[in-house]
Amino acid sequence: MNEQLLLDNIRGVLVRLEETIIFALIERAQFLANPIAYEANRFGQVTAGESLAGYLLHETEKIHARIRRYTSPDEHPFFSDLPAPILPPLRYDENPVLPHRINVNVALRNCYEREIIPFICRAGDDAQYGSTAVCDVACLQALSRRIHYGMFVAESKFREAPEDFTVPIRKRDEAALLALITDAAVEATVLRRVEGKVRTYCQELTGTVEQSRVDPRRLAEVYRRWIIPMTKAVEVEYLLQHPTA
Amino acid sequence: MNEQLLLDNIRGVLVRLEETIIFALIERAQFLANPIAYEANRFGQVTAGESLAGYLLHETEKIHARIRRYTSPDEHPFFSDLPAPILPPLRYDENPVLPHRINVNVALRNCYEREIIPFICRAGDDAQYGSTAVCDVACLQALSRRIHYGMFVAESKFREAPEDFTVPIRKRDEAALLALITDAAVEATVLRRVEGKVRTYCQELTGTVEQSRVDPRRLAEVYRRWIIPMTKAVEVEYLLQHPTA
Repeated sequence: MNEQLLLDNIRGVLVRLEETIIFALIERAQFLANPIAYEANRFGQVTAGESLAGYLLHETEKIHARIRRYTSPDEHPFFSDLPAPILPPLRYDENPVLPHRINVNVALRNCYEREIIPFICRAGDDAQYGSTAVCDVACLQALSRRIHYGMFVAESKFREAPEDFTVPIRKRDEAALLALITDAAVEATVLRRVEGKVRTYCQELTGTVEQSRVDPRRLAEVYRRWIIPMTKAVEVEYLLQHPTA
Repeated sequence: MNEQLLLDNIRGVLVRLEETIIFALIERAQFLANPIAYEANRFGQVTAGESLAGYLLHETEKIHARIRRYTSPDEHPFFSDLPAPILPPLRYDENPVLPHRINVNVALRNCYEREIIPFICRAGDDAQYGSTAVCDVACLQALSRRIHYGMFVAESKFREAPEDFTVPIRKRDEAALLALITDAAVEATVLRRVEGKVRTYCQELTGTVEQSRVDPRRLAEVYRRWIIPMTKAVEVEYLLQHPTA
């Protein structure tokens, strides 16, 4: 099996991404919620109808598209009107690991702005809109990578026992698929490990001005409430559309 | 005294930046040195004479300039041809904390590409030029913020005892200034703390594919060899040009 589909390798990547996600969330939670940064058209013509956060995300994706970010099988853009790469293609496409792909970034961005931000940030406006938007891009890129990794998880589970998946996929039985892909022991391990990492990092930050702004329990809770369920939703949605079932 | 000049607050910011820097260096060290990413004109017309890493840095700074990043007193761009902000100005400039500023980013970028990269990354080319350039931007932005914070450190020390500084500044006595700003005990504390953090993070990452690529001792050594000396060089250079000495 392709090494990107070995569950041990996938879990290694997801463990590695925990640092990136936790760290990005801690950085964002230094600032207040700053709802103005998410209001469309709040900062004039230049943002072309987007919010400030959306503008920065879009402009960042345009640049990253030029350096080939979204040709990678584990990267998914939030915007669809991106320029072509200036780098020659890598060999990803000769034998793609995933027979198809889905993109749930629109839902992810909504969830992030409307639920996760008010959950991890104290309410209010500290005028640090640029800094919060920079943090938002880092958070969204890391969350998107994590959540879309669900496709590799799902494909790996599917290939291990395709016969288990065929009937629920044909019946579009989402509950049965969710039961098939759910491993409660692995989820409990992830949550314990994330809580430990969050505690460690917040401890390391003790004594700084910003530290008091971050609530470690809330950061760990983001995994329980959003990241794990969204990853599983990607797995189910990916399987439902699986071309070989 | 302005709160940005209280040494305790400055040290709090520098402690906080250690996580950002260590984490950015760990991310970069996942990839090989990839010298091609630093060769000017290697990837065609679009990069306008720059290397791929320089192109990404430049494009990122253009966007960040639009969202007001470089109006902040603790942010310094690597490029000078940046567009005006689309956000209204904050009140930084009404009563600037620093009477003057210097920018050592050209030297920092040279040092980063020619010395730090070959030191923390294994030699070779893994074709991940886009990913390495994204990591480079994160590293350079964090290093630049840390090193230019030397101006706040120097201004704070200057205001505590301006009479100590006046003669060495007028004589342009760099060695005397270096002796005045050096606190060996604080440096030893920083190095111990950084080594501890690097060990903690690399431990957290145990078991992943990438982990084996990062040498924790080398990451901590970056502080000893480059970050602390460059910060002190900024302090000395800042003091040498101090308008009120």
